[in-house]
Amino acid sequence: MSVIDINCDMGESFGAYRLGTDEEILKYVTSANIACGFHAGDPATMRKTVKLALEHGVGIGVHPGLPDLAGFGRRNIDISPQEAYEMVVYQIGSLWAFVQAEGGEIQHVKPHGALYNMAAVNRELSEAISEAVYKVNPELILFGLAGSELVKAGEKVGLRTASEVFADRTYQQDCTLTSRKLPNCMIENDDEAVAQVIRMVKEGKVLTQQKVDADITADTVCIHGDGAHALSFAKKIRQTLEDSGITVRKIGESI
Amino acid sequence: MSVIDINCDMGESFGAYRLGTDEEILKYVTSANIACGFHAGDPATMRKTVKLALEHGVGIGVHPGLPDLAGFGRRNIDISPQEAYEMVVYQIGSLWAFVQAEGGEIQHVKPHGALYNMAAVNRELSEAISEAVYKVNPELILFGLAGSELVKAGEKVGLRTASEVFADRTYQQDCTLTSRKLPNCMIENDDEAVAQVIRMVKEGKVLTQQKVDADITADTVCIHGDGAHALSFAKKIRQTLEDSGITVRKIGESI
Amino acid sequence: MSVIDINCDMGESFGAYRLGTDEEILKYVTSANIACGFHAGDPATMRKTVKLALEHGVGIGVHPGLPDLAGFGRRNIDISPQEAYEMVVYQIGSLWAFVQAEGGEIQHVKPHGALYNMAAVNRELSEAISEAVYKVNPELILFGLAGSELVKAGEKVGLRTASEVFADRTYQQDCTLTSRKLPNCMIENDDEAVAQVIRMVKEGKVLTQQKVDADITADTVCIHGDGAHALSFAKKIRQTLEDSGITVRKIGESI
Amino acid sequence: MSVIDINCDMGESFGAYRLGTDEEILKYVTSANIACGFHAGDPATMRKTVKLALEHGVGIGVHPGLPDLAGFGRRNIDISPQEAYEMVVYQIGSLWAFVQAEGGEIQHVKPHGALYNMAAVNRELSEAISEAVYKVNPELILFGLAGSELVKAGEKVGLRTASEVFADRTYQQDCTLTSRKLPNCMIENDDEAVAQVIRMVKEGKVLTQQKVDADITADTVCIHGDGAHALSFAKKIRQTLEDSGITVRKIGESI
Repeated sequence: MSVIDINCDMGESFGAYRLGTDEEILKYVTSANIACGFHAGDPATMRKTVKLALEHGVGIGVHPGLPDLAGFGRRNIDISPQEAYEMVVYQIGSLWAFVQAEGGEIQHVKPHGALYNMAAVNRELSEAISEAVYKVNPELILFGLAGSELVKAGEKVGLRTASEVFADRTYQQDCTLTSRKLPNCMIENDDEAVAQVIRMVKEGKVLTQQKVDADITADTVCIHGDGAHALSFAKKIRQTLEDSGITVRKIGESI
Repeated sequence: MSVIDINCDMGESFGAYRLGTDEEILKYVTSANIACGFHAGDPATMRKTVKLALEHGVGIGVHPGLPDLAGFGRRNIDISPQEAYEMVVYQIGSLWAFVQAEGGEIQHVKPHGALYNMAAVNRELSEAISEAVYKVNPELILFGLAGSELVKAGEKVGLRTASEVFADRTYQQDCTLTSRKLPNCMIENDDEAVAQVIRMVKEGKVLTQQKVDADITADTVCIHGDGAHALSFAKKIRQTLEDSGITVRKIGESI
Repeated sequence: MSVIDINCDMGESFGAYRLGTDEEILKYVTSANIACGFHAGDPATMRKTVKLALEHGVGIGVHPGLPDLAGFGRRNIDISPQEAYEMVVYQIGSLWAFVQAEGGEIQHVKPHGALYNMAAVNRELSEAISEAVYKVNPELILFGLAGSELVKAGEKVGLRTASEVFADRTYQQDCTLTSRKLPNCMIENDDEAVAQVIRMVKEGKVLTQQKVDADITADTVCIHGDGAHALSFAKKIRQTLEDSGITVRKIGESI
Repeated sequence: MSVIDINCDMGESFGAYRLGTDEEILKYVTSANIACGFHAGDPATMRKTVKLALEHGVGIGVHPGLPDLAGFGRRNIDISPQEAYEMVVYQIGSLWAFVQAEGGEIQHVKPHGALYNMAAVNRELSEAISEAVYKVNPELILFGLAGSELVKAGEKVGLRTASEVFADRTYQQDCTLTSRKLPNCMIENDDEAVAQVIRMVKEGKVLTQQKVDADITADTVCIHGDGAHALSFAKKIRQTLEDSGITVRKIGESI
């Protein structure tokens, strides 16, 4: 049976600033990555988002980021593995308390932005992040880019991991994403984007920019929550995946 | 049998900035209130301080403050009860994760500075703080000024509470502390300070500035961790309390 | 001749977060209050907003706030006059540099939110803010609530001041604004709101909630920049003021 | 005639946190680099430090850093040249206002920590920083590592620049500093450290780790302000330079 999880970043509002369409997008996803105040989010937003996620029955994830609100956690910061460990422990705890107060449970951890990207190619960072997750709660599932150092480090430490794929990004022969600085990095056509995911789930393969297939594991697919197109794409990918006989459910029920 | 807990604020360093003499003061206290990054502290400091506190076997407390690093959490901020609830939940969680990662347990929660002082006289804030603690973990002990709204709210919600007293501050007839803006607010003489605590523990009374006794409950006494005098006073109060036949132990073992 | 300035808060975006419709609203106002990174705004937003304001020929104002991004500078913080002085000096300088880099000049300073409201009724805070403005540049115009301590303190120190009025707020007999916690604090009807301003400008009077007129000085009227209604109201008030024979121009050209 | 400036970082306290011995070190230096709140410092500290620097008659410098208080501005952040421009403009302005309020003048700008190091080897960043300085005030002197991209970019844009050398660091054949990750990066012996500076000033040469001389320009030497040894070294280097017939004076009086 083919199964996939659909995840989306959430709870990225801050103070008077609103971002995303969390209530709408929650209808189409099965896992929510909730910001913890470092790159976005604040205690009020976290409380609200945790409640919303529980009401929709989606898997709740910690979405730890770099301490860079002004840069939305998207700028690389040259942190040590030790600092990565500490940041991730702190942020898991901060979200845990809101989930605990509402009577729920955390399902997974997915690093955000630059932290995710740096970890993907940096074994030491990935090991520190994995250790942080494991020591706080070894039952949590660690999300990482399919084939990345983060997935490897998570498995090595003894965590369950989820290999993440992207619908709207193109791939290189080594299964890394095509850099955003290059042309053809994005799949602009929605049908092609969904088709790429379906093939990744059903066949475990992706056609790369080098015109050859690469093997890929697709446990969860990331969609975006911001903008009108995001909503219509979310609806489409969910519908099309299900129409293709793929079961869409939260990762915690699959692995 | 007369019993008291001695608590001290800790983990108040930040980044390159060092504050306090945590390792030294830990020899004399039985409970540690650890800052969580809002008024002081950071993830690295929290990790280190939790480890230190566990090594010394003291009770570990969350020390949530207002989000005001520049003001060290000492300036009143006109937050709503809802915001107080959210800040406290967040900070309990952040410390919990470090304690969890090290295999320990949290004993108590003691609000810091302006949050502590505002709550002492504000029922709505106190109820929000108490609810935050209760919903995250109803086993935690809430520290508040003896006789304050915070202690009342904690009891009302069903928490165990610890009434806190001060060695070096004078009291008013209604058991509030003499304002720092008034003369005679401080007890400068160490012997008098310790004697005040011994009487509070043994007799449940304190001689107020109005020259009459007031009833007071003393479950835990707060000492300061900064400066050379702080250390010598810590040593003295611990020794003298024990010499007076008072058992000094962490609050979690007494209530 | 009747003259008034129309001012609006701007540059309140932060990082990835967008707020306000600065480019649209600039068509209708004559002075712009630009946030400086304490309650809102960041260096990138400041640069952009200064450029926009210069292109539209409006008067550029510093809009210093309390250091409370999460609360958008709307929560009172119990700062000392000295701290108010330092915060205002810092923020004037930060904006000055962008204006300088673009070849422009600063016209005025208008404190934001809680800082504005606290100063309105607190002489010491107002004197500290006025001194900050004066010492950095005695040519700057200080904006304050008409009749407030801030206007008085500004005049006392030797600054030119602008008395600010509100179109959509009702007034008390002592010329303070009706508290937002009370019913009837707002004027919901746009025509009534504009009529109130016209009468303040032409007759120097406002009908208060006590059904008696109060004397009031109206040098500048504050409008809001957020939301679709804000834009249509901005257009209407500008048009109606001009149709009533009132000259709308930036304060620096009038006083 | 041989001349050199001695500069030191200052004003790096923050809120309740104290760092450095500014009052002591000011006796031995001729230029002060004052932090502006991004990597260290706050408005209160800036006001105090500017006053102190003016009282001692030293050249006042802006010391802009990356927005990373927790990392003390020492962690590389992957900012764009545009962001570097904006950060530097903002910070120059913030310090300018305090200097203006006290009736003084700014002499120079020296980027801090990771911003300084990244600029040293990155032409685009250096050009953005140089443009920021030039557009706010073309009279300011830009400090950069001797031979670095920053010095080149400053000269290119039309600024006066000061080539900075280090007493206690060893050099490579291309005049870069030996990485802190390598052995022999530091000169531990004070006499050797001072001798290196004297030779750089008098002969324009430094003996590199490759055992060959390199040409170097020494307009200003950086000393550290933290710790007891810092003070004794400051005293020694000042005394020895003067005993060697080198004039020690602030850079603004030399170029």
